[in-house]
Amino acid sequence: MKQGDPIERRATGIRLMSEIIDRQPPANPTLLEETIRDFGFAEIWSRPGLDRRSRRWIALSGCAATGMTEPLEEYVHGALKSGDITLEELREGVLHFAVYSGWSLGRHFDRIVTRVADRLGLSMQSPPLCAGSWDPQERWEIGTANYDSVMTFPPPPAPSSFVDGGIKNFVFGEMWKRPGLDQRSRRWITLSCVGACDAPYPIATHVYAALNAGDATYEEMDEFVLQFAYELGWPKGSVMQAALEAMWTRVQNGEFWM
Amino acid sequence: MKQGDPIERRATGIRLMSEIIDRQPPANPTLLEETIRDFGFAEIWSRPGLDRRSRRWIALSGCAATGMTEPLEEYVHGALKSGDITLEELREGVLHFAVYSGWSLGRHFDRIVTRVADRLGLSMQSPPLCAGSWDPQERWEIGTANYDSVMTFPPPPAPSSFVDGGIKNFVFGEMWKRPGLDQRSRRWITLSCVGACDAPYPIATHVYAALNAGDATYEEMDEFVLQFAYELGWPKGSVMQAALEAMWTRVQNGEFWM
Amino acid sequence: MKQGDPIERRATGIRLMSEIIDRQPPANPTLLEETIRDFGFAEIWSRPGLDRRSRRWIALSGCAATGMTEPLEEYVHGALKSGDITLEELREGVLHFAVYSGWSLGRHFDRIVTRVADRLGLSMQSPPLCAGSWDPQERWEIGTANYDSVMTFPPPPAPSSFVDGGIKNFVFGEMWKRPGLDQRSRRWITLSCVGACDAPYPIATHVYAALNAGDATYEEMDEFVLQFAYELGWPKGSVMQAALEAMWTRVQNGEFWM
Repeated sequence: MKQGDPIERRATGIRLMSEIIDRQPPANPTLLEETIRDFGFAEIWSRPGLDRRSRRWIALSGCAATGMTEPLEEYVHGALKSGDITLEELREGVLHFAVYSGWSLGRHFDRIVTRVADRLGLSMQSPPLCAGSWDPQERWEIGTANYDSVMTFPPPPAPSSFVDGGIKNFVFGEMWKRPGLDQRSRRWITLSCVGACDAPYPIATHVYAALNAGDATYEEMDEFVLQFAYELGWPKGSVMQAALEAMWTRVQNGEFWM
Repeated sequence: MKQGDPIERRATGIRLMSEIIDRQPPANPTLLEETIRDFGFAEIWSRPGLDRRSRRWIALSGCAATGMTEPLEEYVHGALKSGDITLEELREGVLHFAVYSGWSLGRHFDRIVTRVADRLGLSMQSPPLCAGSWDPQERWEIGTANYDSVMTFPPPPAPSSFVDGGIKNFVFGEMWKRPGLDQRSRRWITLSCVGACDAPYPIATHVYAALNAGDATYEEMDEFVLQFAYELGWPKGSVMQAALEAMWTRVQNGEFWM
Repeated sequence: MKQGDPIERRATGIRLMSEIIDRQPPANPTLLEETIRDFGFAEIWSRPGLDRRSRRWIALSGCAATGMTEPLEEYVHGALKSGDITLEELREGVLHFAVYSGWSLGRHFDRIVTRVADRLGLSMQSPPLCAGSWDPQERWEIGTANYDSVMTFPPPPAPSSFVDGGIKNFVFGEMWKRPGLDQRSRRWITLSCVGACDAPYPIATHVYAALNAGDATYEEMDEFVLQFAYELGWPKGSVMQAALEAMWTRVQNGEFWM
């Protein structure tokens, strides 16, 4: 978009709103609604440097983390209507989101997906929950190996209910490697969720892992921070930007995240 | 539960859902609903190491901190219906929650308690608010002493509106020592609330105080982290797990929290 | 208020509720509703040391950050009905809030303002969004200069999408210097939002900037922490109190915030 032209900026905003959420802007917008159209859609969603499907996962996860209803319904509608994300992928994304943001917010997201899918006439059969082994020892070993593969460093050695009963048993033992959703999409969901809850250690490790595993380039992560900041507010964006700079230096130098 | 058997896992989930929230799982569950039944209820709520009443306080507080409605209504219904928590205790718990999560979220919780209590035909008279002295100086001294007793270290010496007008005057001067709810339950509410809002200093001090005062053992706190992570997401769980390990070392060594 | 008298405390609470939210307390209050009246309104809102308009911005922003509906509607109603904040100012405040808390929560706030304004028969024309230049280079320079003026230190030199496409382009290039709302009010909104999301770097910098720019005295900031803690919970209050003490020392010593 050529800056320097408010008329063109507005036109871009209207076009992007249609593409992203399949909606016309309100006729008599409030100041905030004007800004969403002329800044959010025209100047953020229109940027190059990150594909639209990735931006959709960031927007969906960031919005779902606030617990709000109306904007999430619009994002879900746009994602499914455009075909950028299938219903099967979105259900996997909701599960991934729920693990990183808690089950209450996850259920809210899930309900909205059901409502929008019904409206669009989409339906699906849930795939089986556990794709891996049921032997406890084998399951623990799979979880440990998956953690290493996703995070690019080994899990904490000290035993705890949190790590053994949660992280290894389910988060990495069952969820991260489920076939219905690609690892890159899972990265955007995870990054948005850890950023939304401002947890310093998970922000650092997941930014590091996304870069170190090669699921996102530095340039894409740089765009991620802006899209994320737009959805969740600039303070959380600042924290993410600082983490990106610190972790990128470590990855480039071949250093451990800590 | 014997792992290695998805049929048995599902059966455990169904039984636990009935015991905890007095509800049958949906007939055609989404992937998330399956997970709540087969992981959340079957593998988290069924664990030994922490009594059910404590798990209920963690779930109630964590869920209320998200501001969601439906899952909180289920937890409130289950807590009151089972008799694990009385209406009198729950009203005290809501006040305690509101202090640690803010009044807006507290009012949401309070409204849901009213709605469920009405449906169950429960009612009560509110006890008087201030149980202690009305003399300002005496009140300040009571708040100071209560802080020391609850936190296991003295309050900050520097005067401020926050400490004098809030912490000493009300939080410790009126609330923490109210007779309607035991101190152990207050710990779970507090720990869940400070963890939900990711505030580093309060997380450290309240984990330290819970262990140092003997209101919870290390093993119980270890289980708390998993239940909390399930409710609020694994990133906040990681932060809590790190705090637990750091503070437990300090308590064992007889060191101050800082 | 003379302490030592529960009858007088209650009367003060009833009077303040009427002044602040134009509402009578419920006839058969729950324990929490009693506390809101007898502690929140009687002992927090009645305090000297910070003007009521400032307290309103803190309450509005803090409450909006929780995503709750009913208490926010009451605060919006009270602010507009009393005339302490005009509809024009409130729309600017909502935009400012949305930037610091994300667009989903901002839209929720905006909808509530619309609903309350309609009920009160208030209406307005939205002012134009961009008050400044449309030349990209000039815009970048304006954003850079405005950042320096608001934050009292220069923006980060390293280029990034976040800083160039977001912070300089819009947050400081368009928003902070919009004429419809004074800078002091913008401070309270910003401080409440950064505190609500517990982002350490933004909390430190904005506390520093508010003091260093002279938009608020130390004594007013001390009162801000208590009002903020009441709205968002004491853990976030503790974090803010620690930031205030650390930053006040730096400002007094003429040191940089870091």
